[in-house]
Amino acid sequence: MKIALDAMGGDFGPSVTVRGAIEAAPHIQGEILLVGKEDAIQSHLPSNPPANVRIVHAPNEIEMGEEPANAVRRKKDSSLVVAAKMVKTGEADAFVSAGNTGAVTAAAHLFWKCAPSISRPAIATILPSRRERFVLIDSGATPDASVRNLLEFAVMGTAYAEAVLGIEQPKVALLNIGEEPSKGNALTKEAYKAFSAYLPNFAGNIEGKALFHGGADVVVCDAFVGNVLLKTAEGLGSFVMEMFKESVPKNPILRLPLLLLRKGLEDMKRKMDYAEIGGAPLLGVNGICFICHGHSDEKAIRNALLNAHRGYVRHLTDLIEQKACTLKGAVNA
Amino acid sequence: MKIALDAMGGDFGPSVTVRGAIEAAPHIQGEILLVGKEDAIQSHLPSNPPANVRIVHAPNEIEMGEEPANAVRRKKDSSLVVAAKMVKTGEADAFVSAGNTGAVTAAAHLFWKCAPSISRPAIATILPSRRERFVLIDSGATPDASVRNLLEFAVMGTAYAEAVLGIEQPKVALLNIGEEPSKGNALTKEAYKAFSAYLPNFAGNIEGKALFHGGADVVVCDAFVGNVLLKTAEGLGSFVMEMFKESVPKNPILRLPLLLLRKGLEDMKRKMDYAEIGGAPLLGVNGICFICHGHSDEKAIRNALLNAHRGYVRHLTDLIEQKACTLKGAVNA
Repeated sequence: MKIALDAMGGDFGPSVTVRGAIEAAPHIQGEILLVGKEDAIQSHLPSNPPANVRIVHAPNEIEMGEEPANAVRRKKDSSLVVAAKMVKTGEADAFVSAGNTGAVTAAAHLFWKCAPSISRPAIATILPSRRERFVLIDSGATPDASVRNLLEFAVMGTAYAEAVLGIEQPKVALLNIGEEPSKGNALTKEAYKAFSAYLPNFAGNIEGKALFHGGADVVVCDAFVGNVLLKTAEGLGSFVMEMFKESVPKNPILRLPLLLLRKGLEDMKRKMDYAEIGGAPLLGVNGICFICHGHSDEKAIRNALLNAHRGYVRHLTDLIEQKACTLKGAVNA
Repeated sequence: MKIALDAMGGDFGPSVTVRGAIEAAPHIQGEILLVGKEDAIQSHLPSNPPANVRIVHAPNEIEMGEEPANAVRRKKDSSLVVAAKMVKTGEADAFVSAGNTGAVTAAAHLFWKCAPSISRPAIATILPSRRERFVLIDSGATPDASVRNLLEFAVMGTAYAEAVLGIEQPKVALLNIGEEPSKGNALTKEAYKAFSAYLPNFAGNIEGKALFHGGADVVVCDAFVGNVLLKTAEGLGSFVMEMFKESVPKNPILRLPLLLLRKGLEDMKRKMDYAEIGGAPLLGVNGICFICHGHSDEKAIRNALLNAHRGYVRHLTDLIEQKACTLKGAVNA
């Protein structure tokens, strides 16, 4: 198998992506294709790179701030577009990028299209919980979702949890503003009924306060709600850390006891660390795609490459299509 | 002026509400009416209660778990319904309750109706930020909101920030999944245009990560998104605290240095404490209504009573109607 890595993607470009690829290479049965400016990539490769790492030249780049759909249509020679197209033509089996999230989504959706039984793609984000972790889907691809879309997100998240995270019989919950079936907005009230009818692993509604306590393995919502949730959690986390830093004594001697907490705080930080998780899969498209945070370090890139490898080996795309077939009777509401 | 306090509301009933009323009484130019079971209230009153605190008997109660609309229609002799109706009949000027949030909202909306220029009510929650605090509106009343509703929430939140929080020229932002005007779902894309046209204090979109950094004074969203956001923040907060507790050394001697951090942690807790804030106003209805958290202690009740008093004295309801009149041209989208 071959993974096309957008080597120019992310805030640090090839200085980080190339190292991530070199760290992942020994664990991958197949090849990693570093797509991007040959010179720039070459300058970060060691003199004796792993045999299964190869450069594919692409002279252009899509910037973080560019309007996604336009950039993808216009910059046909960018590393992001070239890497995505390699999956379409069969030159690669998976696509990994830490570039412009909207552009990665647009490219995979535009060039690969959705799987036959899927109408819209979704981004799954893996978050920590008291019971290890859970999948939040959709966190970025489809902000105006229908009931049918949410049903698809549920089976896509289930397939991912089983195939890549190794969770047996994952519990699916619907993110809502109350636990009772009658709670919610028009969308979630209807979705509750459809989930009950079509998803054998549906465990009911879940409220925001129960998410991090491990109430479910797969939590389903539209991308507007999912994205607000993710970014709020991020913002609140940094707010609390800043308040904590300000609340500890200023005197350096009095701060010494903090050293005792260091190991614990580092464990905690590791648990919250997106780099450990290795990217968010874009699910529902005809191919394996992982989107990494712009700030990704080499570990994040390495882990995303390993996840893409695992997704391919475990037939993630087929599994999603197979599960989505069981939704045939569900109206296209 | 008179404030009708649902003395049976909240997890602790009269044992907390009565003390809250006694603490607030000296600061209120008017009367606090303790609505509920006479015996139960009497047993918590001191032998010599403040002259401006009086019991209004109501023999029944609405429980926390009851279906709101039904309970309000059926239990006409409950403390919550009796207190809400006193505002309708003019026997009271404001209504405060720590009871069933849905029932408080339903009662105020059903009996008082919306202000003439307002189509739907909204709950405003006050949250801490790096720049003191901000108003999140709607956090619970209208989960399926139209563009028109969001416009109304914006002026209601602005009026509250000015009249009760004393913020001059509050900045309004639209909660969204990107800063650019083109970002969002169908609702927020349309809302952005309407906000730009009708709100002179509109400062653009705000993302979840900027909320707690004081990016805006009034943040507008529908109640589905607002409620998910609030509960996620609550759940994440307790998750982080539990992880923190587990991360500190188990040995009691090694834990001693933590005492040095105590003051700082308590300052931080105080900043996050809903009791300091004193309830969330239900805005857009014909009257002053404050909803307190079920866990409210006497300080929370006291502060909600003082906020209700301030809302009345500063003509909050009139101010909302006055500002909402400027939306006349806005379509009822």
